[in-house]
Amino acid sequence: MKNFLDEHFLLETRTAQILYHDFASQMPVIDYHCHLPPASIADDTQFENLTQVWLNGDHYKWRAMRTNGIAEDYITGKKSDKEKFLKWAETVPYTLRNPLYHWTHLELQRYFDVNKILNKDTASSIYEECSAKMPLPEYSVKNLLRKMKVEVICTTDDPVDTLEHHKKIKADGFEIKVLPAFRPDAAMEVSNAELFCKYLKKMEAASGLEINSYQNYLDALKVLHHFFNENGCTLSDHGLEEIYAENYTDKEIESIFNKVRSSKDLELMEVRKFKSAVLFYLAELDAEKGWVQQFHLGALRNNNGRMYQSLGADTGWDSIGDFSHAKSLAKFLNTLDQNNKLAKTILYNLNPADNEVMATMIGNFNDGSSAGKIQWGSAWWFLDQKDGMIKQINALSNMGLLSKFVGMLTDSRSFLSYPRHEYFRRILCNLFGSEIENGELPADLNWTGKIIEDICYHNAKQYFSF
Amino acid sequence: MKNFLDEHFLLETRTAQILYHDFASQMPVIDYHCHLPPASIADDTQFENLTQVWLNGDHYKWRAMRTNGIAEDYITGKKSDKEKFLKWAETVPYTLRNPLYHWTHLELQRYFDVNKILNKDTASSIYEECSAKMPLPEYSVKNLLRKMKVEVICTTDDPVDTLEHHKKIKADGFEIKVLPAFRPDAAMEVSNAELFCKYLKKMEAASGLEINSYQNYLDALKVLHHFFNENGCTLSDHGLEEIYAENYTDKEIESIFNKVRSSKDLELMEVRKFKSAVLFYLAELDAEKGWVQQFHLGALRNNNGRMYQSLGADTGWDSIGDFSHAKSLAKFLNTLDQNNKLAKTILYNLNPADNEVMATMIGNFNDGSSAGKIQWGSAWWFLDQKDGMIKQINALSNMGLLSKFVGMLTDSRSFLSYPRHEYFRRILCNLFGSEIENGELPADLNWTGKIIEDICYHNAKQYFSF
Amino acid sequence: MKNFLDEHFLLETRTAQILYHDFASQMPVIDYHCHLPPASIADDTQFENLTQVWLNGDHYKWRAMRTNGIAEDYITGKKSDKEKFLKWAETVPYTLRNPLYHWTHLELQRYFDVNKILNKDTASSIYEECSAKMPLPEYSVKNLLRKMKVEVICTTDDPVDTLEHHKKIKADGFEIKVLPAFRPDAAMEVSNAELFCKYLKKMEAASGLEINSYQNYLDALKVLHHFFNENGCTLSDHGLEEIYAENYTDKEIESIFNKVRSSKDLELMEVRKFKSAVLFYLAELDAEKGWVQQFHLGALRNNNGRMYQSLGADTGWDSIGDFSHAKSLAKFLNTLDQNNKLAKTILYNLNPADNEVMATMIGNFNDGSSAGKIQWGSAWWFLDQKDGMIKQINALSNMGLLSKFVGMLTDSRSFLSYPRHEYFRRILCNLFGSEIENGELPADLNWTGKIIEDICYHNAKQYFSF
Repeated sequence: MKNFLDEHFLLETRTAQILYHDFASQMPVIDYHCHLPPASIADDTQFENLTQVWLNGDHYKWRAMRTNGIAEDYITGKKSDKEKFLKWAETVPYTLRNPLYHWTHLELQRYFDVNKILNKDTASSIYEECSAKMPLPEYSVKNLLRKMKVEVICTTDDPVDTLEHHKKIKADGFEIKVLPAFRPDAAMEVSNAELFCKYLKKMEAASGLEINSYQNYLDALKVLHHFFNENGCTLSDHGLEEIYAENYTDKEIESIFNKVRSSKDLELMEVRKFKSAVLFYLAELDAEKGWVQQFHLGALRNNNGRMYQSLGADTGWDSIGDFSHAKSLAKFLNTLDQNNKLAKTILYNLNPADNEVMATMIGNFNDGSSAGKIQWGSAWWFLDQKDGMIKQINALSNMGLLSKFVGMLTDSRSFLSYPRHEYFRRILCNLFGSEIENGELPADLNWTGKIIEDICYHNAKQYFSF
Repeated sequence: MKNFLDEHFLLETRTAQILYHDFASQMPVIDYHCHLPPASIADDTQFENLTQVWLNGDHYKWRAMRTNGIAEDYITGKKSDKEKFLKWAETVPYTLRNPLYHWTHLELQRYFDVNKILNKDTASSIYEECSAKMPLPEYSVKNLLRKMKVEVICTTDDPVDTLEHHKKIKADGFEIKVLPAFRPDAAMEVSNAELFCKYLKKMEAASGLEINSYQNYLDALKVLHHFFNENGCTLSDHGLEEIYAENYTDKEIESIFNKVRSSKDLELMEVRKFKSAVLFYLAELDAEKGWVQQFHLGALRNNNGRMYQSLGADTGWDSIGDFSHAKSLAKFLNTLDQNNKLAKTILYNLNPADNEVMATMIGNFNDGSSAGKIQWGSAWWFLDQKDGMIKQINALSNMGLLSKFVGMLTDSRSFLSYPRHEYFRRILCNLFGSEIENGELPADLNWTGKIIEDICYHNAKQYFSF
Repeated sequence: MKNFLDEHFLLETRTAQILYHDFASQMPVIDYHCHLPPASIADDTQFENLTQVWLNGDHYKWRAMRTNGIAEDYITGKKSDKEKFLKWAETVPYTLRNPLYHWTHLELQRYFDVNKILNKDTASSIYEECSAKMPLPEYSVKNLLRKMKVEVICTTDDPVDTLEHHKKIKADGFEIKVLPAFRPDAAMEVSNAELFCKYLKKMEAASGLEINSYQNYLDALKVLHHFFNENGCTLSDHGLEEIYAENYTDKEIESIFNKVRSSKDLELMEVRKFKSAVLFYLAELDAEKGWVQQFHLGALRNNNGRMYQSLGADTGWDSIGDFSHAKSLAKFLNTLDQNNKLAKTILYNLNPADNEVMATMIGNFNDGSSAGKIQWGSAWWFLDQKDGMIKQINALSNMGLLSKFVGMLTDSRSFLSYPRHEYFRRILCNLFGSEIENGELPADLNWTGKIIEDICYHNAKQYFSF
């Protein structure tokens, strides 16, 4: 019987243990996609207590608490930080087999040297012990990142963002690179004319251009894209239900733009055509600048209207959609490729039923021009757990080259999420270890160790030119 | 080498064995969804022989026999019960790796103390041995249920059912609760106008109302729903290809109703709108009464027209569909939730490719008002086997709280199917056992044992207020 | 620690080893679907070197090389055979966990007795050693097939093929049966009018009929079908995105035919209707002749337009589609069944998300008339690896009768691919072995061994009447 979460956690063979401890764990962390707030890094925030650093904004934990029958007051409501924590702690034992259970105890161990199991009985003492550490210098945001050997962070930013925090971080000489990523979801969300018109105002302010026509709009996007580029951005990112690759004419798009610009709501197909046009345009900008473009596909968001109205987006009311992706994705990538405008691309799917579509789609556009040019991204969001990672790693192995994979990212809003890289690495090493001991791979630990280091670090470093 | 189907069947670790024998196996059975005939319980039927209790009506076995090349005469035809049994026995050795192989031998062991393998050679002696027991008192239907520690049974009943058998069972003081469940599939099946009009006559008779308008029809549904409620019903159930959540106006539905009422067949979209309206109405009734509503989604039924014409429904010609569920399901549940009309709900999917859609959909409406309010149901029908259960349990664990799961049901037409609860429990304990021994969960057998008892019994008892 | 790829490769238990070595490995090979060029068999070709026999035409290897960043010149371009091989060898170590890694080393072992790992360092010596063997008599195409105990091969042939090579092979008295299979994809591809008209000319030449009407076209198809039948063909095969089963009238189809015949491109729905009509017609021809019909469903082909224009089809730019299959497949099979025109049928799906749809669809039409009449084909193309095979075998086991499965085929263009049968057999035996040792199956090795022999050989022999 192995001890819970000991040094060989998830490492079932001696070979896996060697691969993890001697190779994977030695690598720094490149977190090329996350939702960390750059302001907190710029300010080197000290959080006040464990609830503030650990529960606030964490909709994974919130969903679990709600499913456990905890009232909203203890989640996003007015209860005190400690009361909220106690309710979370009470929920933790009910999360067993959910990734939260592992994350929780990994994070307590790695950041706080707390080896106890979090539950009702230990809640109060753990809260006090950890909260007491929060004012210490080593618990400042920057030091939390240093502790985890983070080397690069790419945040997720709206095109109208001033990037002031990124500038400050750089100006302050922080040795960890904190780069913006261009996420234009709001900039192309025309399904609500009123919100889009409001957004155009912000675009005008940010770009310094008047936006009276579709061409103006594209020009403004280009200015903002260039501004991000000037500030170290090398990645874009899109959160979409599906890739839009409808046929359209420039004339149609101009007329659609004028319609929505004059606050008239669009038909469904007009929305799709407009988004198609803008996606192609932005993809070309990415190609011109040599950026990597990322597509996060398949989430169904804000399904609970009542709670969305009260709490807003990203508060735990999203789920997995079942869209059809293959044809439009092939069309989109092919159109770009034929015009020599296909940037390096990472596809992420939220529905694991689409795994094999994605794993094979990337091969259609890996044309030898650079190793692993088109990537299938790491298991994401609801799939960011042992099962989901194993499925992604296996499908990628079976249908592509795992060895060229750019690997893990946190996708997190929390400064305590970096053990997810460790989690991924242990799972990866365990797969290799079992197959080596089982005679399915040669027992060449140097070669396998090199491949593992590549997946954990070198591939990303090279791919993103960090 | 372990012996086949011994006491530690499916329990691969010592911990799993403890969890099963000390915790799971001690729990009574709550079978909150099945297709047992209430008449047989009311009459406390004694079956004549093994074929009658075991093969009749069991389309799982029939499919296997047909695939094995057995002629229909030996399945649903005129051959003698013994001849049918011999053909089934001849087929059994060819079912290895199919759940039928495990079920068959579990059922022979648990109900008949027969430990032999069923095949051509043993067929005749097993048939005689078991058939000889059928007239014994302990093989009456009620005693078969008692033997398996069944505490509650919910049958599946048409709204026009008189519930006479349920009443008699109760009046006779049977200590096992046998409750009806309201399954209005036929009551809303308007795709065939002629059949629907016939059904309306039955509704009129059962409700005592004349049905000349859509409003009358709704009133009649309400009367029947209330009648079920009066007779102990606390669950509804729907067998649907997909959830219908089309936009509609009351006027449209009234006109659709009048059209079908006058024996005119409807357009596809009219059928969808009508079903949408009725589903919303029934869901509101369920919410008002505090029932649990169940949706069995995704079966493609009666695919073999020739055999359907000759044998009718539920005779083994159904398969798994590939419908798109996410958007309509979200819309349906959200509409109810926004009007504060969302009852406790259990979603069942037949296509395992939809597992993660379901596992995450439930989280959108688990709002903390009660623990596990929205449930993702146990692996169903074609998925009711080791692989299917493991996938469901794992996806639920990864994306929700397994600890709040209401667990297993038989969904069966047979009085010999209760070992399926045992089967589920062994699989469940084995998952926990492996992870504990592997260091992925703490070795806290009391806590894990409590969670297992909850999943096997207490959660359902509380959820359904039995 | 087991040695890499030793005699017990993939056989994790003693029981699995017995089942493989004493039963599975003793069986001859029936390769009822492949893409081997009959001309090379007729000529008993000797290849010049390892590149020619192993890399040419192998788009699996090509995709891996491109993903590894190898330029096209070294793949399909003008570099020398040895230069190409060195680039492949350099890529091999990066393919670990891809089936190519296993196939590569299995093929080196089985055909060349080379036990070294292929990589940059060993590349040159392995190339020379193997290439030196190519002129030896035992490396002629016929002797390569004999070496692998192949008994029957079914190639894949266009209806207008002369079958001259098949005739010569037979006339030369080759003891391995090499039979044609009727693959009419081009004959019904009306989505490009110009290409279809060109094809009609070939049909006229091959059938000796003028084709001026839809009826002529059907007559020509029938003549060609009959010609294949006369030459030993007993299988048809279709490569389709999806089964087309649209409603249509004869009149519509005649008018669609006349339109495309006069070089006018068709609307999408016209294409679908036309293909539906032809599929039904061909299926009836298959039923009349007692052939087996095969459907390979769900590939998305030629996604990279730029590379397709330069290299043509089947060069590594295909991927997995996400079509909806269930309803049209049920309709198609049911329509044939109701008219007593349903031939033995094998369904293959490329998207593993459709596994359970397929595994249960076949049961709808297995009516007892012959054992395993409707089959779900072996894991295909991108799924032809350990994971994919296990998923297919498990889903078939759970939802049908694995024991009646006609088993493995190579689907390959290469004369060195026969170890894929060995690979499949080892995986199959390993599944049975683990379950026997684990007490999930009885330890009856004779029965299990018989079932394994059936799946590896006897079932196919009987099913195809070879």
